[in-house]
Amino acid sequence: MGRRNAFYAQSGGVTAVINASACGLIETARRHRDRIGRVFAGRNGILGAMTEDLIDTGREDRRAIAALRHTPAGAFGSCRYKLKGLEQNRREYERLIEVFAAHDIGYFFYNGGGDSADTCLKISQLSAGLGYPVQAIHIPKTVDNDLPLTDNCPGFGSVAKYVAVSTREASFDVASMAKTSTKVFVLEVMGRHAGWIAAAGGLAADADTDLPIVILFPEIPFEPEKFLARVDGTVRKYGYCSVVVSEGVRDTEGRFLSDQGLRDAFGHAQLGGVAPIIADLIRQRLGLKHHWAVADYLQRAARHIASKTDVDQAYAVGRAAVRFALAGHNAVMPTIERVSNRPYRWKIGMAPLDRVANVEKIMPRRFIRRDGFGITAACRAYLLPLIRGEDYPPYKNGLPNYVRLRNTPVAKRLRTAFEPK
Amino acid sequence: MGRRNAFYAQSGGVTAVINASACGLIETARRHRDRIGRVFAGRNGILGAMTEDLIDTGREDRRAIAALRHTPAGAFGSCRYKLKGLEQNRREYERLIEVFAAHDIGYFFYNGGGDSADTCLKISQLSAGLGYPVQAIHIPKTVDNDLPLTDNCPGFGSVAKYVAVSTREASFDVASMAKTSTKVFVLEVMGRHAGWIAAAGGLAADADTDLPIVILFPEIPFEPEKFLARVDGTVRKYGYCSVVVSEGVRDTEGRFLSDQGLRDAFGHAQLGGVAPIIADLIRQRLGLKHHWAVADYLQRAARHIASKTDVDQAYAVGRAAVRFALAGHNAVMPTIERVSNRPYRWKIGMAPLDRVANVEKIMPRRFIRRDGFGITAACRAYLLPLIRGEDYPPYKNGLPNYVRLRNTPVAKRLRTAFEPK
Repeated sequence: MGRRNAFYAQSGGVTAVINASACGLIETARRHRDRIGRVFAGRNGILGAMTEDLIDTGREDRRAIAALRHTPAGAFGSCRYKLKGLEQNRREYERLIEVFAAHDIGYFFYNGGGDSADTCLKISQLSAGLGYPVQAIHIPKTVDNDLPLTDNCPGFGSVAKYVAVSTREASFDVASMAKTSTKVFVLEVMGRHAGWIAAAGGLAADADTDLPIVILFPEIPFEPEKFLARVDGTVRKYGYCSVVVSEGVRDTEGRFLSDQGLRDAFGHAQLGGVAPIIADLIRQRLGLKHHWAVADYLQRAARHIASKTDVDQAYAVGRAAVRFALAGHNAVMPTIERVSNRPYRWKIGMAPLDRVANVEKIMPRRFIRRDGFGITAACRAYLLPLIRGEDYPPYKNGLPNYVRLRNTPVAKRLRTAFEPK
Repeated sequence: MGRRNAFYAQSGGVTAVINASACGLIETARRHRDRIGRVFAGRNGILGAMTEDLIDTGREDRRAIAALRHTPAGAFGSCRYKLKGLEQNRREYERLIEVFAAHDIGYFFYNGGGDSADTCLKISQLSAGLGYPVQAIHIPKTVDNDLPLTDNCPGFGSVAKYVAVSTREASFDVASMAKTSTKVFVLEVMGRHAGWIAAAGGLAADADTDLPIVILFPEIPFEPEKFLARVDGTVRKYGYCSVVVSEGVRDTEGRFLSDQGLRDAFGHAQLGGVAPIIADLIRQRLGLKHHWAVADYLQRAARHIASKTDVDQAYAVGRAAVRFALAGHNAVMPTIERVSNRPYRWKIGMAPLDRVANVEKIMPRRFIRRDGFGITAACRAYLLPLIRGEDYPPYKNGLPNYVRLRNTPVAKRLRTAFEPK
């Protein structure tokens, strides 16, 4: 087999460890220069491929690539751009193949969630039909932990660690203040569709450290009276309480709480924030002093408190993607397989993309306590290994020394421009 | 001189390192058992003294006390309770002296901000007048960095580090997303009266890492048009922008922005949150996609990313308080004196409480850039040493292993109960 170039792109919301996957991929590709010529990255994800705006990762020195392992967010830029079906947007797929052909790209690596798995599969299928076969490998990434066939998704473990650590710390804080001041702390976390991230708040309490934590999952319809009774009872027992609320919590009619609450002084709907709504409910109905926080991007960018398990796995799926490609695989995704819980052991597996694309893994109901406000022992056993280990970045002048690449453009070869919709 | 007992209490909002001061104090006192008998702590701060609810720190073993150094929040409980002047509340001060006398307490250590410095001073003055002299030493603590006569306040450096690191991380995130999605990220930080904490957001960018950060200080009246022009210009230049906004930002008439914006669906005023107001302004007027976060307690509880400088100094002021007491000082506070900037060197100084109480240190105008949206080189030179160094807590099962003390009560000796107002 001859030598061909590779293309790598980051897709969707970034994470604390998606660059660790890029690092694993590029470092591994560099060890196989006989088979993989150049590794191009898409500037701003798949848009870079469509507009032929490629980055030459070969212009980055060894140390810069190594530093990707400890640098959060998307080093080449990501994008939110969902390719539609082949029928509706055949031209976009054809354009991708044109760009790949122009740059002798035989390996397509796409690092993202469910949508990008679908794109990856379609490219594999179409490229064969067009007579320019490309091996398409999907690399899993999502803080939402919602990809099927893999035990967990790189990116999730670090968010989970951030949420668990932050919930523990804030709970210690409110415990100190509760006698005369704040009695309830509310933390809003990500997870529009599933409660994986909110569940991580439950890890803040354990056998050594008993903390009163009430979790609001998107899976459990929000019933104000039940919730208020729970907070009231908890504060009566412990003197204080922490609430971890998923941004995706809905009322009993299925409407997002965050969509219905706030208006500005002129009556215009105010975007987002379920934490202030929950906090205000507690204030109005229970008369308890509260504080609230919204972690937003801080949680998924927090490389400073990344999970070592997560970093290792993110690197491993990037490396495995190259190995799969070199072994001739196509339309597959490396997965994380849990071998054992105690001690936690995992290995890399492989899943066919047609079984990954457009399938969402939901949180099992048995992971949520019967009362709906906390996690079960099974959930804890699942989550704990994923937050284990610290993997601190290097610091300079008191700040993490994150790398920014040169991102040198590759000369264009096509005469036509392409304007994505 | 004979042997007398000591009393220690934590006051006001807690920090990531106030327990490090407790650690320094207790460990040092234990090395002077000939002079300091028992060290009592107030359960829930000064309330514990008034209600004679004392904690016997002697019941904690050496390892538990050592672990205070890496444990955030207030291990004995804090309180928000301001003693009024002697004229209005003489009974409260007299009660404190009664409790001290009943437990042979000759050393009063009060760990807090400006209000507690004032209380500390009054106790010193009154106790002499009542014929039961108590040496009162104030130990500085405040995330707001607003105490006079000390170069900085323990507690501030760790918040500053959290804000600088978080702003850097979130800026990397939004930079990755900006092409097709979020272009502005807004982070709300503490600092009701002064912009010290917001200023720390400016450290996220430096000569190595150019990031576009716009800061909104409480010292600079908020002018929407100027701000929007600044954000617009920044996004045009960089493609994205981070905004760090102090909770204390006010409009040109001096009203807090956070007090005027939001109402719930029923028209009731909605508490707090200036970040969503700023974010919504950006959306409505500039049409830019945004995300916003409110750090709230997370910032001051974040022991996992504490500044080593801050931890060292917090410990040192606790230790110095004991040494001052043993040297016979009264109505004083240990201070941090900056000896040099490069390399950063500091030492412990001493300030008389009558010059500390009720004096607020404001941020010099020369620390804010002329345009009002960023920090100057002088501010950077001041701040940088305070966030330097990491001091990671030990971890167990992926979580910081913070200590919780037994907090064994001391048997009461007074027959009278006391009900604080």
